[in-house]
Amino acid sequence: MSSPVDDATLALLLEVAGTPKPGNVDRHRDLDDLRFEAFLGGAVGAREGLEPAVDEETGIGRAFERGVAGMASRAGTNTQFGCLLLLVPLMRATVDRAEPGGAPSPEAVDRAVRATTVDDAVAFYRAFEHVDVAVGDPPADAADLDVRRGSDAAPALRERGATLRDVMALSADPSDPDRVPDRNAREWVEGFPRAFRAAEWIRSDEGPLTDRAARAFLGLLAAEPDTLVAANRGPDAARAASERAAALLGGPGETPDALAGVDGIDAAAVHGADLDAAEGLATAFVDEGINPGTTADLTCAALYVVLRRGAEVAP
Amino acid sequence: MSSPVDDATLALLLEVAGTPKPGNVDRHRDLDDLRFEAFLGGAVGAREGLEPAVDEETGIGRAFERGVAGMASRAGTNTQFGCLLLLVPLMRATVDRAEPGGAPSPEAVDRAVRATTVDDAVAFYRAFEHVDVAVGDPPADAADLDVRRGSDAAPALRERGATLRDVMALSADPSDPDRVPDRNAREWVEGFPRAFRAAEWIRSDEGPLTDRAARAFLGLLAAEPDTLVAANRGPDAARAASERAAALLGGPGETPDALAGVDGIDAAAVHGADLDAAEGLATAFVDEGINPGTTADLTCAALYVVLRRGAEVAP
Repeated sequence: MSSPVDDATLALLLEVAGTPKPGNVDRHRDLDDLRFEAFLGGAVGAREGLEPAVDEETGIGRAFERGVAGMASRAGTNTQFGCLLLLVPLMRATVDRAEPGGAPSPEAVDRAVRATTVDDAVAFYRAFEHVDVAVGDPPADAADLDVRRGSDAAPALRERGATLRDVMALSADPSDPDRVPDRNAREWVEGFPRAFRAAEWIRSDEGPLTDRAARAFLGLLAAEPDTLVAANRGPDAARAASERAAALLGGPGETPDALAGVDGIDAAAVHGADLDAAEGLATAFVDEGINPGTTADLTCAALYVVLRRGAEVAP
Repeated sequence: MSSPVDDATLALLLEVAGTPKPGNVDRHRDLDDLRFEAFLGGAVGAREGLEPAVDEETGIGRAFERGVAGMASRAGTNTQFGCLLLLVPLMRATVDRAEPGGAPSPEAVDRAVRATTVDDAVAFYRAFEHVDVAVGDPPADAADLDVRRGSDAAPALRERGATLRDVMALSADPSDPDRVPDRNAREWVEGFPRAFRAAEWIRSDEGPLTDRAARAFLGLLAAEPDTLVAANRGPDAARAASERAAALLGGPGETPDALAGVDGIDAAAVHGADLDAAEGLATAFVDEGINPGTTADLTCAALYVVLRRGAEVAP
């Protein structure tokens, strides 16, 4: 049985190696200010947080912060902040005592998320002091909880009694039509439906894991607007990027609806994704500055789940 | 201070990511039967042996065997056998009590090699049972020590009282004109001059580490015939491959002599290597089935040394 820490490391590596992942660093593309080798360094450095993620004595907020610090120290930049935000609760769920099966379940990860405390929230905010992370504005009534405040937000967190799950619930709120709800925060609040769904796409697909991950990336991008694209380029640009990804899914004439959510996209449409055509989209997105980084985070989370379920690299 | 285990993992990852490394799997090339993702799996799985490599309670032969077993279990094939053979003594030298500087010295790695026992030799032979490794024939008077015998060679090893260093000395013997001495075995016997020399090439170079590693690979290949090419294609083919690598070094008109050994190649010639032209050699070597895998092992060892000396990935 492989260790959850090794599987998480391998998920980080397979995620960045999957190609093409339009708009992201991948095996065949660097961005102007972000290189492939930085992701290799980030994956190795993140181990400082992956080990405490499976140690129930350590809060998952603290494990996350240590992972981000280790990643930033090695990579010299932010490479996998969002990946770690999803991996840490999935790893804690992997060692859930009620389900000693070796793979995380939606129920176990929901328990891990609901067990978070105010201290976890404070540690999460501290993590933003280690790296620059592109984020949108907080809701108007929660300016004191802007993550960009870092440790300065601690008194407000403690006064409100806000757990890390509470903080995620704020970012996941879909009620404001001017904001794209954060997909990573929605994973936390909703029981990781995207990660588990994409894990199924990958598990039932064929070929090398990096190719399967690239197809799952397109399915995840097609399903919902990417949070990072929305933060950097606005909600309309994010929706347009998803529509362009959807056009590459399925066989001829079988293109699924864009923005239908992960449950609205069949595994067969993902398995039929045209990776050759996706090369063109990858070039276009890089040229246009469209960087669907949150979709890459979800792909990494799905890879972790499918590795825990026994998926293996191709020799 | 980074951990030796993490640095060894990162060296394995940076080695395979360096491109172009003519004839080898690299960031941009798979071989027919060997994929990039298998190397990612191998790097993660090898940790089982990297951790005992820095634990003085464990023999380095046993640490090596565990690394090979973990690598093979994850990769499903032989990806980094030779890399591990060089990394393990360099890691043991890193924790040498007489030199607590954090980076291995030639003296400390020589001490680590000279401290090997017959048990280390037996464990080394056992490692060949975990994977298929391409090797040449042993010297005529040592057929009972053919590594392909695996555990069956244990009685002969014990009867001869052969330590792991003794076994390496047999493979390193340059006295037989029909055999190319094994470069990895020569590293063991000679105090790792190639790894330390190439580490200096990398340290004094500029640009991303993966590019610096690719240039060092060309310098190492130019310096001496590759053992794996010699084993698979014969000594003449190995020498011809080195001559083609030498032609890519240096600026115009400054091509150094091929086969002059690592001390015969200036750092400036390595830094001036033409990676664009090396792309053509990479395509040619793959087409011709020329696979300089031992040179990749040496590149990995050099990367470990230079990481211990503080080299960092480029953001």
